[in-house]
Amino acid sequence: MQFPGSLLLSVAAFAGAAAAQGVSTYVNPAVPTGTPIAANYTGPLRPQVHYSPPKGFMNDPNGMFYLNGVFHLYYQYNPTGLGAGNQQRRLHVGEPADRAVPPEERQYVFSGSVVVDANNTSGFFPNQNNGVVAVFTLARYNADGSGGPQTQAIAYSHDEGYTFQYYDQNPVINSTSSHFRDPKVIRHGDAWAMVVAYAQEFAVGIFTSPDLKQWTWASNFTNHGLLGAQYECPNIVKMPVRDRDSGAVVDEKYVITLSAQPGAPLGGSVTQYFIGDFNGTHFSTVDAATRLTDFAKDNYAAQFFYGVEGNPISMGWASNWQYAQQVPTGNNEGWRSAMTLPRVSYLTKAPRIGWTMVDEIYDPEPILGDSLASKTDMGNGSVTVDYADVASGALYVEANVTGIDVAKATSFSTLNLTFASPASGEALRSGFYLGGDNPFFVDRGGLRGFDNVFFTDKFSVADVYYDGAADKSAAWRVQAVLDRSLYEVFVGGGRHAGTVLLYPSQPLTLLTVAARDLPPGAKVSVAVWALKSTWAGLADEQGTVVGNVTAKAPAAARRHMVYEGEFSA
Amino acid sequence: MQFPGSLLLSVAAFAGAAAAQGVSTYVNPAVPTGTPIAANYTGPLRPQVHYSPPKGFMNDPNGMFYLNGVFHLYYQYNPTGLGAGNQQRRLHVGEPADRAVPPEERQYVFSGSVVVDANNTSGFFPNQNNGVVAVFTLARYNADGSGGPQTQAIAYSHDEGYTFQYYDQNPVINSTSSHFRDPKVIRHGDAWAMVVAYAQEFAVGIFTSPDLKQWTWASNFTNHGLLGAQYECPNIVKMPVRDRDSGAVVDEKYVITLSAQPGAPLGGSVTQYFIGDFNGTHFSTVDAATRLTDFAKDNYAAQFFYGVEGNPISMGWASNWQYAQQVPTGNNEGWRSAMTLPRVSYLTKAPRIGWTMVDEIYDPEPILGDSLASKTDMGNGSVTVDYADVASGALYVEANVTGIDVAKATSFSTLNLTFASPASGEALRSGFYLGGDNPFFVDRGGLRGFDNVFFTDKFSVADVYYDGAADKSAAWRVQAVLDRSLYEVFVGGGRHAGTVLLYPSQPLTLLTVAARDLPPGAKVSVAVWALKSTWAGLADEQGTVVGNVTAKAPAAARRHMVYEGEFSA
Repeated sequence: MQFPGSLLLSVAAFAGAAAAQGVSTYVNPAVPTGTPIAANYTGPLRPQVHYSPPKGFMNDPNGMFYLNGVFHLYYQYNPTGLGAGNQQRRLHVGEPADRAVPPEERQYVFSGSVVVDANNTSGFFPNQNNGVVAVFTLARYNADGSGGPQTQAIAYSHDEGYTFQYYDQNPVINSTSSHFRDPKVIRHGDAWAMVVAYAQEFAVGIFTSPDLKQWTWASNFTNHGLLGAQYECPNIVKMPVRDRDSGAVVDEKYVITLSAQPGAPLGGSVTQYFIGDFNGTHFSTVDAATRLTDFAKDNYAAQFFYGVEGNPISMGWASNWQYAQQVPTGNNEGWRSAMTLPRVSYLTKAPRIGWTMVDEIYDPEPILGDSLASKTDMGNGSVTVDYADVASGALYVEANVTGIDVAKATSFSTLNLTFASPASGEALRSGFYLGGDNPFFVDRGGLRGFDNVFFTDKFSVADVYYDGAADKSAAWRVQAVLDRSLYEVFVGGGRHAGTVLLYPSQPLTLLTVAARDLPPGAKVSVAVWALKSTWAGLADEQGTVVGNVTAKAPAAARRHMVYEGEFSA
Repeated sequence: MQFPGSLLLSVAAFAGAAAAQGVSTYVNPAVPTGTPIAANYTGPLRPQVHYSPPKGFMNDPNGMFYLNGVFHLYYQYNPTGLGAGNQQRRLHVGEPADRAVPPEERQYVFSGSVVVDANNTSGFFPNQNNGVVAVFTLARYNADGSGGPQTQAIAYSHDEGYTFQYYDQNPVINSTSSHFRDPKVIRHGDAWAMVVAYAQEFAVGIFTSPDLKQWTWASNFTNHGLLGAQYECPNIVKMPVRDRDSGAVVDEKYVITLSAQPGAPLGGSVTQYFIGDFNGTHFSTVDAATRLTDFAKDNYAAQFFYGVEGNPISMGWASNWQYAQQVPTGNNEGWRSAMTLPRVSYLTKAPRIGWTMVDEIYDPEPILGDSLASKTDMGNGSVTVDYADVASGALYVEANVTGIDVAKATSFSTLNLTFASPASGEALRSGFYLGGDNPFFVDRGGLRGFDNVFFTDKFSVADVYYDGAADKSAAWRVQAVLDRSLYEVFVGGGRHAGTVLLYPSQPLTLLTVAARDLPPGAKVSVAVWALKSTWAGLADEQGTVVGNVTAKAPAAARRHMVYEGEFSA
């Protein structure tokens, strides 16, 4: 990542994430490091099943990997301010990153990734098979504030990522470009492969290495999709191709995800993906289509966890640079930004629309609390749930419509999920229009807690997943998590997913699920659960959570890294 | 085009446009044809410098051509209803299109284009060089309502498009596909070339013909860009490449524009474009990027006028299928949908971002009325214009910021254009954020005349046109037309263009242009003109306009076809 526009000089460090691992790594004495950061997670806008930082400003997820049952998450972090503009942190792990930089200049660490060097290809780990290597960008800034070269560097960890040593021969990829950043490394065959953004040349560079130290440029993947004003945070991941009906793995492909901002169609930040083949040096797409990972606009810079077998798992930054530094959680509660829920991805060939990445919600079962409602055949009726007394304020909702003859649905055939505040009259609207083009929509325009000219109110999607299916009694399915100031919906089992920030002036406490004008034979099932707060369990008697300590902490303290830290892939 | 979803069986006819030419072409006796349709164009939401139909529902522009000083515009039209759903019109030009169709089935005419067969390649025009041929889709529907084959057909006109003869050997391109439509024909070398959509296969078919009767498939342009749920209304046009600074023509390329709906990133309908080379049979893109013609969501199915030399000229349908049939102009004033302003297009290579189609506003000079304000150096001040007494209710606004050092602009450096209703407190907001990523935004969320879950409130764009320019004292420029219920903005001289429908509950009558926090040296010029209504001049003493008669009418009566019918290319 790079901070946008006029904020260029004030950057977050990849190593900022190390604070979340309880490691003292910072040179700026004004920033509290090496000690846990305590905070209160009870604010009415504070998500309870999404990760958010204890205080201050967070952005991109970085260095994500899975090892020995733990999902590791680092992130860009400014604990002393509510915007990226206050960040002044540098990499200082064992050897300072900037020791070769003249004192009047500055060198920061930008986003990157982590791999597990199980076979000690790097030589850093002669006595272990769980060595961890971080690969990240060093960004030089000149004394006059202009951008200097961005280069790629590594650091290594003998303790599964809790402490790092800076490699003494960095950078491992030199460059004169001031927009060359965000390396993501995977294992391919007997080598390492990296994708990295030539951000303002609209190219993804592909490099290979035998040892994570010596890198060779192999190819560029250039000018694909929506350009925005720059490319950022490319990812590459191997993904199973599953038969849509049986779920069986029938093939495998690679996916490049590519974030771009500013300049997304919906404004600001967007992430797109490309499906193709990868031979370790070159990526070739199956077609020239541009596909988006999210139908709303609050999911950026997602990264896939290294080391996950089977369906890849990713998380993104649940925000958008257009308003990330203005959202009211800052002034109201002292923090800004959360991560998305983890998503589990695979490829399939949908009828007619063809190649599609399906992003399923990670199994929510471990965080389900009380069942609040359950109807198996609601008909053209409704279910109302007053959840004002649910401590987390967070819900999980599933609704399914089956047995519907699409041809008999009308433009009035709807299934709506509405979350309201009786106190203020505000409402978050969402739902299916089952006739016509079957779109799903989310409308946050009825909430009044945030006025910003870039905070778009409405999002929608045309779900053609079932078009052309032999079974005309198609099923519509929505799975939704409402988490105070975050709404995440998964439509058609993940055929579409949307991440939506929301800022009501009063808490939303009343859910209505209502079906209307469905044709005869349509069957509607609805189930609603309270969600258990993952933060409440970490709080002491005063309600204080030590929000970014996981090193050597008991397993329970890791749960917040994703909403259920102990889950397995 | 095709009507979405459940409306499939009720389609508008290409020949509907003939009504706008004063031609009696319809077989449905319930539809008033052959006589002008009279209407009142004074409603508070009725655009005064955009084309809208006298009554009922209009959609795609069709068959656009320029000949002997006149721009001809046909369109999809239902004069008896306020949505596409009521349309029951068939092609009936000389020979009925459906004479070979069993009476229990139906055949409609879908969108298409027109060419001038100056050299009589068709043989239809032995004695003239201004013969006109329409090329369009015949869409068969089975007795059970399911879609039958869509094929391509032609009709020819000896009187410059005012009356047509149906070709007696139609279709000229046969097919068994039920989603094969919207042919657009151009002249290429010594042959005709057609692009036509295989809508649900996400392919643009390219055909060639020596005579407009015999067509040979040449290639497909497949799976490019945003797929949506189907492709519609492809266009192909030769376009000059101009040097960005001098404006000189340095090259020429071809552009394919391609509409897709539903499923656009902003919801519903979207138009994208691809830049490349065309040899008469194959189109190859300069890159794999996806570029959009409009940063808002109310511009669909645009078509380029045949026969324009130099910079091509196009117009689009200023709406979106998500709400086109629900907008309040229907119930309030008895009409729905307008066309966009004409745009004049060329290609250029912008700094860093590279290949770009620039869409300039067609010179508004002929419709400018009184100058309402003019400041050449406003500084960090403002200009307020009360235009309640401007009869058209329509304004043209130009604002320019020059001499600004981008590095010194902050995130508070703004230039805002706000149109307000003092009576209701509503406001349409728009403007530049000159610091940071320099986006331009439009926010219609402060207007309360229309509540629809798909009517997105906010649009924005990141203008990187000047990034990297040698001259850091870059110029920001916006040209805006507010036309009662339509707002069209051209940013950076057309580097970005946005078409925005708007529905205030009370007329907007107060404009404020305000600059804030611009750094020293910044120079702001603002000019505001009233616009002359093109409809007022056509009204009789009772205010009635015969809104769709142009054949044999005096020149003045053609002016509404575009906002100045007599302009030359």
